[in-house]
Amino acid sequence: MTSDVQRTHARLDSFVDRYAARTAGMTASEIRALFSVASRPEVVSLAGGMPNISGLPLDVVGSAIGDLVAEQGTVAMQYGSGQGVPALREQITDVMRLEGIDAHADDVVVTVGSQQAVDLVTRVFCDPGDVVICEAPSYVGALGVFRAYQAEVVHAEMDADGLVPEALQQAITAVKAAGRTIKFLYTIPNFHNPAGVTMSAERRRQVLEICQREGVLVLEDNPYGLLGFSGEPMRALRADDPDNVIYLGSFSKTFAPGFRVGWALAPHPVREKLVLAQESSTLCPPQFSQMAVSAYLAAHDWQGQIKQFREMYRERRDAMIDALEDLLPAGCSWNVPEGGFYVWLTLPPGVDAKAMLPRAVTARVAYVPGTAFYADGFGSSAMRLSFCYPTPERIREGVRRLAGVLETEMELRRTFGAQAPERGLPGGYDRPGTHVR
Amino acid sequence: MTSDVQRTHARLDSFVDRYAARTAGMTASEIRALFSVASRPEVVSLAGGMPNISGLPLDVVGSAIGDLVAEQGTVAMQYGSGQGVPALREQITDVMRLEGIDAHADDVVVTVGSQQAVDLVTRVFCDPGDVVICEAPSYVGALGVFRAYQAEVVHAEMDADGLVPEALQQAITAVKAAGRTIKFLYTIPNFHNPAGVTMSAERRRQVLEICQREGVLVLEDNPYGLLGFSGEPMRALRADDPDNVIYLGSFSKTFAPGFRVGWALAPHPVREKLVLAQESSTLCPPQFSQMAVSAYLAAHDWQGQIKQFREMYRERRDAMIDALEDLLPAGCSWNVPEGGFYVWLTLPPGVDAKAMLPRAVTARVAYVPGTAFYADGFGSSAMRLSFCYPTPERIREGVRRLAGVLETEMELRRTFGAQAPERGLPGGYDRPGTHVR
Repeated sequence: MTSDVQRTHARLDSFVDRYAARTAGMTASEIRALFSVASRPEVVSLAGGMPNISGLPLDVVGSAIGDLVAEQGTVAMQYGSGQGVPALREQITDVMRLEGIDAHADDVVVTVGSQQAVDLVTRVFCDPGDVVICEAPSYVGALGVFRAYQAEVVHAEMDADGLVPEALQQAITAVKAAGRTIKFLYTIPNFHNPAGVTMSAERRRQVLEICQREGVLVLEDNPYGLLGFSGEPMRALRADDPDNVIYLGSFSKTFAPGFRVGWALAPHPVREKLVLAQESSTLCPPQFSQMAVSAYLAAHDWQGQIKQFREMYRERRDAMIDALEDLLPAGCSWNVPEGGFYVWLTLPPGVDAKAMLPRAVTARVAYVPGTAFYADGFGSSAMRLSFCYPTPERIREGVRRLAGVLETEMELRRTFGAQAPERGLPGGYDRPGTHVR
Repeated sequence: MTSDVQRTHARLDSFVDRYAARTAGMTASEIRALFSVASRPEVVSLAGGMPNISGLPLDVVGSAIGDLVAEQGTVAMQYGSGQGVPALREQITDVMRLEGIDAHADDVVVTVGSQQAVDLVTRVFCDPGDVVICEAPSYVGALGVFRAYQAEVVHAEMDADGLVPEALQQAITAVKAAGRTIKFLYTIPNFHNPAGVTMSAERRRQVLEICQREGVLVLEDNPYGLLGFSGEPMRALRADDPDNVIYLGSFSKTFAPGFRVGWALAPHPVREKLVLAQESSTLCPPQFSQMAVSAYLAAHDWQGQIKQFREMYRERRDAMIDALEDLLPAGCSWNVPEGGFYVWLTLPPGVDAKAMLPRAVTARVAYVPGTAFYADGFGSSAMRLSFCYPTPERIREGVRRLAGVLETEMELRRTFGAQAPERGLPGGYDRPGTHVR
C-alpha cells in the first residue's frame, strides 16, 4: 500500500526528494493563477499591473530601433558588459536626477527589469534565516524573492503617509531582541504597490535616520516615482543617503516592460558584488534591449511621454475613485493614490477577499486578494485594485460588478451570519488608506 | 593600530560583514579581467568566446524587427509569460529536432541566455554542500554559478571522446561513499567549452546508463551542437532519455547573443519549478528579445545562416590548427575540434599558462589559462584558445606571438631551471586532446 502510494508520488514528480530546500518557498503566487483567468476578454481585470503602453509612438520606436540595427547591429546583437551599456547608464543618471539623485554611471548596474535587481540584491545579502523588513502590505514579487532565498519577512505597518517610523523601530527592536539578523528594509516610497500610498518627506527623514542609527541598509524600490499626478516627483531616499541606500529603478512603467530594463544604483562595494552576481546570473543583461531603450531615450521626448502616461493614468485613477464612491456598499474604505497604478480597498468586517474571488471572476471581474501582499497571512479583508490598464469605462464596469458581488456577499452574511471566524486585524494593520465610505 | 586597520577596512567596504555567505564564492573570473585587456585593438584575443556575427544579414534582421514593432509593438513591448513566448517555444522544438529531440513546447522554458538556465537549474536543485559533477575541464561560467550556490564541483576526466565513463562512475562512487549528495552531472557533449572535444555516440549511451543507474540527473548544455564542421549534428543526450536529462540550448551562437535568448527543456515537474524560478528572477524573460528572435527565425533561412557560420568557423579552426602545427615549439599538444569555438592547448611540462599570461599580453596575444576551467586548481599547464572571433590572418599572428612567448619561456627554463615546482597531473587529467607536437 505504502509502496503504491510512493509509486504514484514518484510518477507525479520523481525529483521531489532532490530539489533544493529553497524550492519549498517557490510557489505559484495568487497573482499568477489570476493572470490566466483575467486574460479572458469578458473579464474586467483590476488584477494585473501591466502598464498601458498603447500611447507609445510606435513609429518613433520602430525608427529608433531600425537605425540601431542598421548602424550598430553587430554591437547591439553581441555580448556586452555585465554591468550594462555605458551610454544607457549615463542616461539612467539623468532619469534619477529628476528625483534629486546625484549619481555616477559607474555605480549603476543594469538588470533584467527591477525584479532581477531585487533578486540580485537578495542574493548578495541574504543567508537563509536572515530578516528583511517590508511594509505591510508589500510587493508580491519581492516577497516571492525573499521567500526563494529563505529570508524571513517581518512587516511594519503603513498608514496614509507611508511606512510608520514607530512601527519600523518596533520591528527592528523586536527582531534584534530575538537575536536575528536584519539585512535590509525593503520599501516602495512612491505610489506603493499595492497600498497606493506615498511616504511623506518627514517620514523619509525619519526612516533614513532610524535605518542609519540601527545599521539597517535601505532597499528603495521605485518603479512609479515619475508617475505622480500632481506636482514634482518626491525626492528619493537615495538622494539624502547615498551610503546606506540601494535604489532600484525601471523603464517598465515610464517606457515599456517588454525590454526588461531596470537598474540598481548601489554604494560602490555593493555595486561590485551586484555585477558579479549579474555575470553569474546572465553573463550580461540583453545588449539589444539596453541599446533599444537608449535609442528611444535619445530619439524621443521621453519626459513628454511620461507626462502623457501620467495624464492617462490620472484619468483612470479618477474613474476608479468615482466608481468606488458611487457604487461600493457602505463599510468599504480605500485610499486615493496620488500616482502609480493601485488602490488598496478594505472590505467590511468579515468579508474575505480571497474566498470571494471565484464568485467575482464568475461575475467577470478580477482583483488580487490582500493576502498575496503579506508574508504572514494578513490581508484577507483587503484587495488590490489596479486602474492602469483598462479604459475608464471598463474600470467603472469592473467596479460595478465588484459592488454586485460584495452586496451579495454581505447579504449572505446578514442572512446566515459569519461563515468563518473574523480575522483579528490590529488597528490599521492592513489599512493604509484613509478614505472611508 | 587594530582600530586604524578596521577603519580602513570599513572605508573600503562597510558592508563586508553583511553579505551572504554565498558571496565568498562570487569572485571575478580570470576571463573577466581578460576581457578588458583583450579589448585593446593591438591585442590578438584568443581569449573571448564572442561569436563572430559579422555575417548576419542586418537588412533581414532590421526589417523583421521593424515589422515586429509596427505590427505587434504593444505586445512585444509588454510583459509576457514567465515561461516565454509560445510561438518561440514552438520554433525552439523545431531547432531541437535537428538533434533528434522530440519535445513539446510546454516543456520549454525560455531563459536570459543559457547562462540563466544554468543559474535557474542550480537554484532549483542545489543546497549548499551538494555536489555537481563536471567534466575536467568545464565551462567557467557554469563553475561560477555552482560556486555562487555553494555547491561543490567534482571533476571527472575527459579524453578525445569526451567524458570517460569509468571516471564518471569513479567520481559518483567516491562522492556517495563520502556521504555527499550528487545533484546532477553537468556536461557539454558537443565541441566542448573549453576542451573542444565531442562525446562519442557510444560514450553517450554509457554516460546515460550510468546516470540512470546511479540516480544522477544529467544537465546537458549544448550551445554549439549545430556548429559542427562535418556531417550531421550528433544526437542529443536528451533525445534518448527525456526523463532524466535537462537540455539547455541557446541562440547566442546560432543567431546572436545580444538578445540573450536561451532555453531549458526539462521533465514536466522540473519545468514547473524552473518557471517559478524564472518568475522570481525576472517576472518574465524579455518579450521583445523573444519576439525578435522568433521573427528572425520566421523571416530568414536560419539553417542556411548556421551553415554559413559553420563554414566561417571551420576556416578559422583550420587557420588555428595550421598555425599551431607550423609555429608552436615541440612539447605542446592540442586537439583538433570538429566544431564549436575552442582548442585546448597543453604546454610543455613546467610551463605555467597563468604565470605566463602577463608576458603574453605584453606580446599582444591573450588566452584563458586552463585553471579558470577547474574548480580544484588543476589546469595550470593548459590554456583555452578560441578561434571564433578573429580573422584567419589575425589568428595566425596571435599564434605566432604566443609561440614567441612560449619559446622565451622554455628558453628561460632551460637556462635557469624550473622556477616553480611542477604540478602533478594525473595521466591525461587536463589533456583532452590527442594531437601532440
